[in-house]
Amino acid sequence: MRFFSDNAAAAHPAVIEAIAASNRLDTAYDGDEWSRKLDDAFSELFEREVRALWVSTGTAANCLALAALCPPYGGIVCHKDAHIEVDEAGAPGFFTGGAKLMLVDGPGAKVTPETIEAAIGRVRKDVHQVQPRVLSITNATEYGLTYSAVEVVALGEVAKRHGLAFHMDGARFANAIVTSGAKPADMTWRSGVDAMSFGFVKNGGLNAEAMILFRTELADEIAVRRKRAGHLSSKGRMLAAQILALLEGDLWLANARAANAAARMIGSAAGERLVYPVEANEIFVRASASEAQALRDRGFDFYDWGPDEIRFVTSWDSDSRSVERLAAAIAAL
Amino acid sequence: MRFFSDNAAAAHPAVIEAIAASNRLDTAYDGDEWSRKLDDAFSELFEREVRALWVSTGTAANCLALAALCPPYGGIVCHKDAHIEVDEAGAPGFFTGGAKLMLVDGPGAKVTPETIEAAIGRVRKDVHQVQPRVLSITNATEYGLTYSAVEVVALGEVAKRHGLAFHMDGARFANAIVTSGAKPADMTWRSGVDAMSFGFVKNGGLNAEAMILFRTELADEIAVRRKRAGHLSSKGRMLAAQILALLEGDLWLANARAANAAARMIGSAAGERLVYPVEANEIFVRASASEAQALRDRGFDFYDWGPDEIRFVTSWDSDSRSVERLAAAIAAL
Amino acid sequence: MRFFSDNAAAAHPAVIEAIAASNRLDTAYDGDEWSRKLDDAFSELFEREVRALWVSTGTAANCLALAALCPPYGGIVCHKDAHIEVDEAGAPGFFTGGAKLMLVDGPGAKVTPETIEAAIGRVRKDVHQVQPRVLSITNATEYGLTYSAVEVVALGEVAKRHGLAFHMDGARFANAIVTSGAKPADMTWRSGVDAMSFGFVKNGGLNAEAMILFRTELADEIAVRRKRAGHLSSKGRMLAAQILALLEGDLWLANARAANAAARMIGSAAGERLVYPVEANEIFVRASASEAQALRDRGFDFYDWGPDEIRFVTSWDSDSRSVERLAAAIAAL
Amino acid sequence: MRFFSDNAAAAHPAVIEAIAASNRLDTAYDGDEWSRKLDDAFSELFEREVRALWVSTGTAANCLALAALCPPYGGIVCHKDAHIEVDEAGAPGFFTGGAKLMLVDGPGAKVTPETIEAAIGRVRKDVHQVQPRVLSITNATEYGLTYSAVEVVALGEVAKRHGLAFHMDGARFANAIVTSGAKPADMTWRSGVDAMSFGFVKNGGLNAEAMILFRTELADEIAVRRKRAGHLSSKGRMLAAQILALLEGDLWLANARAANAAARMIGSAAGERLVYPVEANEIFVRASASEAQALRDRGFDFYDWGPDEIRFVTSWDSDSRSVERLAAAIAAL
Repeated sequence: MRFFSDNAAAAHPAVIEAIAASNRLDTAYDGDEWSRKLDDAFSELFEREVRALWVSTGTAANCLALAALCPPYGGIVCHKDAHIEVDEAGAPGFFTGGAKLMLVDGPGAKVTPETIEAAIGRVRKDVHQVQPRVLSITNATEYGLTYSAVEVVALGEVAKRHGLAFHMDGARFANAIVTSGAKPADMTWRSGVDAMSFGFVKNGGLNAEAMILFRTELADEIAVRRKRAGHLSSKGRMLAAQILALLEGDLWLANARAANAAARMIGSAAGERLVYPVEANEIFVRASASEAQALRDRGFDFYDWGPDEIRFVTSWDSDSRSVERLAAAIAAL
Repeated sequence: MRFFSDNAAAAHPAVIEAIAASNRLDTAYDGDEWSRKLDDAFSELFEREVRALWVSTGTAANCLALAALCPPYGGIVCHKDAHIEVDEAGAPGFFTGGAKLMLVDGPGAKVTPETIEAAIGRVRKDVHQVQPRVLSITNATEYGLTYSAVEVVALGEVAKRHGLAFHMDGARFANAIVTSGAKPADMTWRSGVDAMSFGFVKNGGLNAEAMILFRTELADEIAVRRKRAGHLSSKGRMLAAQILALLEGDLWLANARAANAAARMIGSAAGERLVYPVEANEIFVRASASEAQALRDRGFDFYDWGPDEIRFVTSWDSDSRSVERLAAAIAAL
Repeated sequence: MRFFSDNAAAAHPAVIEAIAASNRLDTAYDGDEWSRKLDDAFSELFEREVRALWVSTGTAANCLALAALCPPYGGIVCHKDAHIEVDEAGAPGFFTGGAKLMLVDGPGAKVTPETIEAAIGRVRKDVHQVQPRVLSITNATEYGLTYSAVEVVALGEVAKRHGLAFHMDGARFANAIVTSGAKPADMTWRSGVDAMSFGFVKNGGLNAEAMILFRTELADEIAVRRKRAGHLSSKGRMLAAQILALLEGDLWLANARAANAAARMIGSAAGERLVYPVEANEIFVRASASEAQALRDRGFDFYDWGPDEIRFVTSWDSDSRSVERLAAAIAAL
Repeated sequence: MRFFSDNAAAAHPAVIEAIAASNRLDTAYDGDEWSRKLDDAFSELFEREVRALWVSTGTAANCLALAALCPPYGGIVCHKDAHIEVDEAGAPGFFTGGAKLMLVDGPGAKVTPETIEAAIGRVRKDVHQVQPRVLSITNATEYGLTYSAVEVVALGEVAKRHGLAFHMDGARFANAIVTSGAKPADMTWRSGVDAMSFGFVKNGGLNAEAMILFRTELADEIAVRRKRAGHLSSKGRMLAAQILALLEGDLWLANARAANAAARMIGSAAGERLVYPVEANEIFVRASASEAQALRDRGFDFYDWGPDEIRFVTSWDSDSRSVERLAAAIAAL
């Protein structure tokens, strides 16, 4: 029973069907009928004109946007536990040509106006120090917490005050939307977000993510950068088709709802052991090495997060029997 | 009737089936059972130990290898019509951190020992001029010509003499192998090739290419660069599965054979109009604007290559009726 | 008798005196009294507000400006014999993060509206090909030819029509100004030039060059890039002092005048042997290997430019006796 | 009375004389008679064969070496207060092509085997996290502390154990040598240091620093990188001459001795107010805003380092009267 990561889950059958259905000769790259629908599909979802470009990984989605938002000599303010800092192998440095991540501390990988202000305040305004140019947040965070639309608004104001562009890593955006009940528009551009990666791979997709540009003038530059980074698939229709399949009938929300519900059940069982509240599809649990081993002996697979801390991740297809068993096993520790 | 590009053709049904079959939970990235088979599969094909890494585009496959072979301050000798020079949006510059392409002229996008030697000979050996570090050839070339194993040997010797690494862009390697009848080993490492991209997308794949490292010690570095460039798909099994499906029963050769045969038929019809001999799946034909229009009026779709020159590309699934009709129409011009 | 390069000549005594005179404690970097005078000094020279930043080499001066003018994914149109292409070790690729030099042919390292238009016209307007973003010319050129203000105007119009920024490598700007008699303003911003490097090292300076930004808003970014490239000297006053000493009383023009006059004398002697007219301080002469040897035997030092071609360079301090002797020796060949 | 920085001090008269003396025609770049002496001069100083290259700033000296030691995808372990992290405008990211600085905490900008081990230990050994490749320390540190040769040995062992190259920022190496009494060899290559920047600008030089390569095979690559970064001055003799003048008769040690002595005098007066022991030429003193103002009112110029903390820096030419007055003024606070 695998609770290792949502990364590795199967794709939703509708996604596989969509790939198969799009498997016919069409214009190469993003000139096909599926790719050409993305702008409209996301414009409707976000209640305004946006530009949407597919790409095959979250790292590419984040870093192509960051490269357009941040000059090589600029800084990207983010949490010290942000995926772009910790788990992308220095990709922001590669894509931007050497921009510097400026790290902020705080529990649960969440930044606050105060921590952001403090980080910016420490920078001398001269040519010897890298000046911040972008604020990047992850929603839901790397620890399964979410920002409400109100929180994002406050961060957007800080960004604006300091002339920072505002980027959102939305690898688990669906989970955050389901939890908050906010409209996608309120969670993003109405709060000042300029560009985001909209994740599908962890939510029923196979290998398609969307870059959403609220500053639509960025799209043409990012399209060039996408090609230059080797991310312009010649049969891009298979990426667009996945995304359209997940948007269709709000399947993306249904998938996230399922994952979140499974996580909540496990979280409830963990009770006092929880390191963070469960607001998305990740559950961080305090457990000794022997307790972790006991769970493994019962057939559960998960990640050792640190000393006496383990992580479970649910996904759209988390098996309810397995979830119940895991909840019971944790409760019984 | 579309003869625009092999890039945009449908994937072979076996490829779609393989994707569907691999759509289940497994270890993320390249830890799954499909990805772990690639080294062995290609080692068998190449009759020696190789390392093989999947990636989703030819640009990424070429440029990740070039970045490992060429320092930022080095030069890559290639033909002026090479894909890496003409059609990858400067990707070699991005991946290598600014290496310089050193261009060689000659018909049909083919380089020769003589043109390579001349280009190298023009470089002063001092710090003011970029020194060549890599030779990159494309086989089959961008104009549908092929290098025989004997020709590759001669180029490999030039590379060795000057201390250059040797890279092959094998976007249409299958077509070259079918034409030459050479063993993959003879065409590559036995001739001195250090690394190659082995193309599948133009030959029945959906979005999977393989980087083959004959210098196996490069693989770990390239794996890091792959992640850093956002090319490490979390469900990489879907890429590996495509490749395995095309290797299975030599489907890759059957597909290339079909494409080449269709091209030969069209080439025969073109006769004196041919700009280059047809050695792979591309046919360059001299035709006036009105002749081109006449062909279009009859329902054929193709690329205007230049003044009075048009290009047709066949693919694994080129419809034989359409091919016959096109041949007849060209013959009738 | 050394006619190898103006690069290696001694600095003018006024420059050494200025360095000594500035050798006292002052604010570090460019906050000192000398550096703070540069904007005004060059604004006066160019008859409008400009921003001027010192740097210690021509390569840095060119490439810092190009990095501000050209995105990493853009192209810089220049002559195939341009210094930035041939003799800067790939520095434009390093500073810009991988921009591509798009080469134009033609005699004497001069570009023309026609060759520029042709080069731009060959580029497909899509994401697969690098799009030109900057035009860079060298005045005087690498072969000692000059552009008149009228010629620069015509190039500026081409640049404007295609949305290209316009850069001038002015390593030998002084020589061009002396020859043409044009005002610096007419030769540059009034003709559409956005940024230039204004050379002093080849003209009596020791190690100071100026970047002149006619688009003054570029200066702050370039100041950051200068620091980031390790080109912000802490005792920058010694660089500014050199420049001010050479501007003082138009010493820069006097120096160039001397170098040009010496070159003309040698050029006159060369007569029919000249490869190019002598318009600045370089003389390219046809001479067989034995003729070259004969000159060397008589004590003249120079550069073998190619088969049967030799190059002489004069400088501000070319000794008139040596110049006369060389002229006589060439005439006697 | 200026105690702001050693950066901005005048150059030693011997340095100016050396520049003037070298001001005559010689081979360009580093082919002149002064530059060609550097390898021998430093080889003697370090008691083994080394390669030595001049460059005009400390940032260039550090970052060119780091670029040769660290691949773009690697990490450089250093102190969070290291100059390369705090005050070089992201230059390491630019020169390396995006390498990541991996920061270590601890008082006085000193790293220890324990803090280094802990930082390295936190990195997962997979492709998702940047792997450390270089250890960089500053001696004397940015807070005026020094590493003894014994301490450097211990760090060298940690570096070796983890396969890290070992770099030393020696902007104030002279001050550290004077304090420790260690031989330069013991402080560097005998302790495992692979490459260092050897500072002269803060110690009586004008604009010359030396890169010392104990791994001599790095020198040729760094020479190429130096050119490519625009740091190959055409009249490099003026840089080499400065360095030779300061090595002559151990003037570099005399200069550092003078600066250190002045600092010690001020440090003694500060007594309990000292934030760190005074081991080089920087003095960090606890002082309230009103105390700082009182000192300023008496004519002393210095840097506000943080709340209730001020910094004084002495230099080779610190005026003894001013130093005595400052010491008295601090003692009287």
